[in-house]
Order: sequence, then C-alpha cells, then structure tokens
Amino acid sequence: MISPRFKKKYLFLLFFVFQFFLMFYISWCPAEDLSRMEKLVLIYQKQIMTQEIELKKLKVTRSKIYYRTEQKVLPKYIKDLPYIYAITPTYTRLEQKAELTRLSQTLLHIPNFHWIVIEDATTKTELVTKFLKNSGLNYTHLNALTPKHYKLEEKDPNWLKPRGVLQRNAGLEWIVTNQNSKSNGVIYFMDDDNTYSLKLFDEIRFTEKVSVWPVGLSGGLRFESPIVTNNEVTNWFVFWKPERPFPMDMAGFAINLKFFLQYPEARFSLRVQRGYQESTLLSQLHVKLNDLEPKANDCKEILVWHTRTEKTKLKNEDKLKLKYGHGSDLSIEV
Amino acid sequence: MISPRFKKKYLFLLFFVFQFFLMFYISWCPAEDLSRMEKLVLIYQKQIMTQEIELKKLKVTRSKIYYRTEQKVLPKYIKDLPYIYAITPTYTRLEQKAELTRLSQTLLHIPNFHWIVIEDATTKTELVTKFLKNSGLNYTHLNALTPKHYKLEEKDPNWLKPRGVLQRNAGLEWIVTNQNSKSNGVIYFMDDDNTYSLKLFDEIRFTEKVSVWPVGLSGGLRFESPIVTNNEVTNWFVFWKPERPFPMDMAGFAINLKFFLQYPEARFSLRVQRGYQESTLLSQLHVKLNDLEPKANDCKEILVWHTRTEKTKLKNEDKLKLKYGHGSDLSIEV
Repeated sequence: MISPRFKKKYLFLLFFVFQFFLMFYISWCPAEDLSRMEKLVLIYQKQIMTQEIELKKLKVTRSKIYYRTEQKVLPKYIKDLPYIYAITPTYTRLEQKAELTRLSQTLLHIPNFHWIVIEDATTKTELVTKFLKNSGLNYTHLNALTPKHYKLEEKDPNWLKPRGVLQRNAGLEWIVTNQNSKSNGVIYFMDDDNTYSLKLFDEIRFTEKVSVWPVGLSGGLRFESPIVTNNEVTNWFVFWKPERPFPMDMAGFAINLKFFLQYPEARFSLRVQRGYQESTLLSQLHVKLNDLEPKANDCKEILVWHTRTEKTKLKNEDKLKLKYGHGSDLSIEV
Repeated sequence: MISPRFKKKYLFLLFFVFQFFLMFYISWCPAEDLSRMEKLVLIYQKQIMTQEIELKKLKVTRSKIYYRTEQKVLPKYIKDLPYIYAITPTYTRLEQKAELTRLSQTLLHIPNFHWIVIEDATTKTELVTKFLKNSGLNYTHLNALTPKHYKLEEKDPNWLKPRGVLQRNAGLEWIVTNQNSKSNGVIYFMDDDNTYSLKLFDEIRFTEKVSVWPVGLSGGLRFESPIVTNNEVTNWFVFWKPERPFPMDMAGFAINLKFFLQYPEARFSLRVQRGYQESTLLSQLHVKLNDLEPKANDCKEILVWHTRTEKTKLKNEDKLKLKYGHGSDLSIEV
C-alpha cells in the first residue's frame, strides 16, 4: 500500500518530469521551426544578394550599351558562339584612320569577334596603336613589311602588285600559334576599305570547311558570285579570269578554323599572278568545288561590296605653304 | 516560524509558478521570433520575385542586344537626351546601298537619333524603301527631284553643280512641319559617303545655337578647321575661298533645333555659287562668328572625314553581254 505522502511526492516528481519534457518539447519544436526559418532566411538573404549582384552587372552592361558612343563597351561574348577571326591588312595613307573608324564601328556590333590588324610597316604606328586601343574591340595588332620591290608606288594602279600578302600571312601565323583545334571559329579576310553588312557575319559564323557568297561591285561587274544548284556550288559567275580554280574576291569566302588548322602551313604567296591569291590558299587546303558551302540565301544576296575610296588630293597643302609658309598642323591626327 | 511542510508546499508552488512562466516565456519568445522570421521570409520571397522579374527583363534586353545583327533591336531612346536629326540626301548609283549600309551601321549605335533620308528622285525607290525598313533605325523617307538642268551628268565632275540642295531643304521642311520648339534637338547635315566617328555625335548633341568643328580630307587639305582662341571661333583654317562668311564643309556644323525654328524659312539655295551653301543657310539664321560653339576639343580633333567613294567601273558587264548574251542578274539587288 503506497502512502499518501509517497503518492504526493511521486505525483510531484511525475509532474516535474512531465514539465521537463514539455519544456523540452516546447523549446525544441519552435526552435526547430525557428532554426528552419532562420536557415530559410539565410538562404533567401544569400539569394537576394546574388540576384542584386547579377542585377547590378546587367544594369552596368545596359548603361554601358546606352553610352556606347562614349564608352564603346559592348557585350562582346556569347557562350558557345563560334568566334570570327578577321584578318585585316592596312597601310598608312591619308584615308586610313577614316577607313578603320567606319569599319570598326560596324565591327562593334559583332559578338565573339577578334580583329587581327596587320600594318604594312617596319614598326607599328602610333595612329593605329591608339586607334585600336580606343576602338572597343578585341584585337591583335601586328606588322609585316612588304619588300620594296613588291610594294606599290604612289602612282601605280592598285592592281599592279599583290597587296596584303605578307600581312595576311602574318595573321594566319598568329592564328596557328595562338589558337588550337579546340577553338570554335571562322577565319575571314577583311580589307579595310570594303563594305560589310552585319548580316554577313551571321552567315559566315557557321562555316564547316569553306563557305562562299557573292561580292558586289567586284571584277568589273555589278557583282561576282558562285553559281548554286541544289545547295551546291557548281560554277562561277565571273568575267575576269574564270579559269582560276576559285575565281572570287578575298571578301567572298571564309574558312573554318579547325579545318584550317589541319593544314597549318597554308599561306598566300607573293609569287603568283594577279587574282590567284584566293586559289593559292584554298588549293593548299585541298578544297573541292563541292566542299564549298554557299551562303547569303544560296548566293542570291549581296552582303559585302568591294568599295574603294578615292585618294584625297592635297593640292592646296602646297599652295598654303607657298602662301603662308606652312600647311595644316601636323600635330593634328587625320 | 514557517513549518517545513509549508516550506515544501511553498517551494513546490514557487517551482510550479516558475515553470509556468518559463514555459510561457519559452513558447512565447520563439513564437514571436517565429512570426517575425515568417514575416521576414515573406518579405524576402517577395523581394526575390521582384528581382527575378527585373533580371528577366534585363536579360531579354541583353539578348536582344546580343542578336542585334539579326534583330537590330537597340536601346534607341534615353529620356531627356537631346535628339539628333540627321538630314541625308541620297541618289541612285551602284555604290548607294553599300554607302547607306555602312553609314547605317554606324548610326545604329546612336541613341535618340532620327534619320531623314531624301532621295533625289521623282518617286521613292524600292531599294531605299526596303533598306530603311530593315535598317533598325528611326527614320523619315522623303524624295525631292533636282531639276534636270541643275542635275549632274554621269561624266560631270562632282563640283560642277550644287548637290543635295532641294533634298536638304525637303528635310528642313519636314522638321519645321513635324517638330516644334518644345523638342530638344540638333540638326545635322550628313552626306551618305562621308565618314563619321561616333564621338562626333556626343559632341554635337549639346549645341545651343550653332556648333562647329574640323573636317578631315576637305578642301584640298588634310583638314579644314575653325580657329579657336579662348574657346571662341576667331578665324578659319582653309585655303579655298576663305572670304566666305562661313568657309566650311556641310559636315562641319550643326544647328540647335529650337534655334533653327526661330527662322523656320531658312533654306539652302540652288542659285548661289559653289561653296556658299553653308554660308547661305547660316546667314538666314543671323549667326555671328562669336555665336559659334567650337567642338572636338577646341577644334583640335578630327571626328569626321570628307571621304569619297570611287565610281565602280562596269566595263565587264558589256563584255559579258557580248560574250554570253546577258550581264549580271538584275533581280539581284546590289
């Protein structure tokens, strides 16, 4: 028989133990909810911070795009989009800065673009160095001098000697040295006085071996063009030297980078006759007619023009010197 | 003297009360913390959602900008930035589409820009109509025909007759009819074969009356330029016809829109001698030398060049026709 006193003590003990567990439970459960909430809050705070950083970046990009005219900062890179490597020979003349300026302002629109500019000079000039630095583009600046006996004189017609050969080769050399077969890209030979539609770059980006398309104002015709039948190049619409293996202009084709790197020693040559530069290079790549990929809506659209810029006549500079003792201020870069 | 039994009961009572308060406290505080945490979590969830929407919008804008070459969707408008109204006369020739293409690709970078293109033609051509529609720019397409006896023949040197006069006037007419003195903007005469640096448009945007700057490759010199002393135009560096009131090229000045609208009948004239177009217009605006605002770093930088494009020789079109019975496919637009 349990005594009443023992019962009381027992009850109190039970009550005490019960209290204890109750307290434990009450403090544990909300604490668990609380700690779960706290964890959630921490996660959310982290997410908000990450988003704020991303928002900030996008806003900075957007404001840079808005003030592109000042900043020239463009979204230049898109993941997994093949790169376009443009090789541009250039040489010092009055119109050079103007040509490079208007060309670069077209190129600024193109994502995943790398401009390889090669001066026909013993050393890189300050004009081109400063220009490229301020252009806002990804670029490589090289120089390669055309030997004197190969170089055009001031009064020579422009077709007299091969132009840009060593400069383009220097560009190819850079590509072979600095790119590898993992790089996804396209090589394009871009002269600094031609005119390029932005649509062209969309077309040439996805070249598997060698792609081709028409060139406007070329070869003494309204345009020169590959002839396409059933999505294949079967012939050429040209008048001048149609017997060439590849009778087209430098601006009318592009080469897949990986494909080119299978023949890393392929180069242009100073020693071939006029109009055979393109054929010389493509022959070294062992390209057949049916390897060519027609672009520009089966070669029915003109997306590049072989424009040429008039030489500026400086007749009044000498007259000024005669009259006033000095010409235009040479410290002002034109 | 308190009895031990009372003491015990008292202690147990105290203990019980203490337990009660403890329990209450423990359940209340976490609950309060919990509800505070829950509120915080809701706030954070809302913030995250808002940020996600904003991120999504910015990403869409950015992807549109990335695919500009396809979409030509650009941020074209910035609140409160003065508009640039460029008046460009153009005429049909082989190089026209190339010129307009490369110029438009420069203009695509410029926010708050309106292009007024006026064809020298009886009716608007399909080429220019389609071109402008696909250009991605804000534009107005007009046409105005130069009377035959004023129009240059194919073989005339380009300086023989005044060019672009009626077309520019049509542009000014449109501005007077469609803009009012509330519009904040600048008028600029932009020929389709010149070369414009993007920096120029930043400079001219904030013109109060008439601003001026050097033009490269102009007037038989490396450049022609206003001469600036103490931030004021005091003279002109030109050789050709320096006696003109404003001896400069069309590309070398811009007029504030509100200022122009004070003289809404000011126009160019077919009847003045060569080189006097600019002076004719500015005289009608009653502009004095010291009204002119020098731009381009006190007129020490060249931001626009008077480039000219060579005429394409189509000598082989006729030879093709003789040989094969037809020239290049005329349904392909060049």
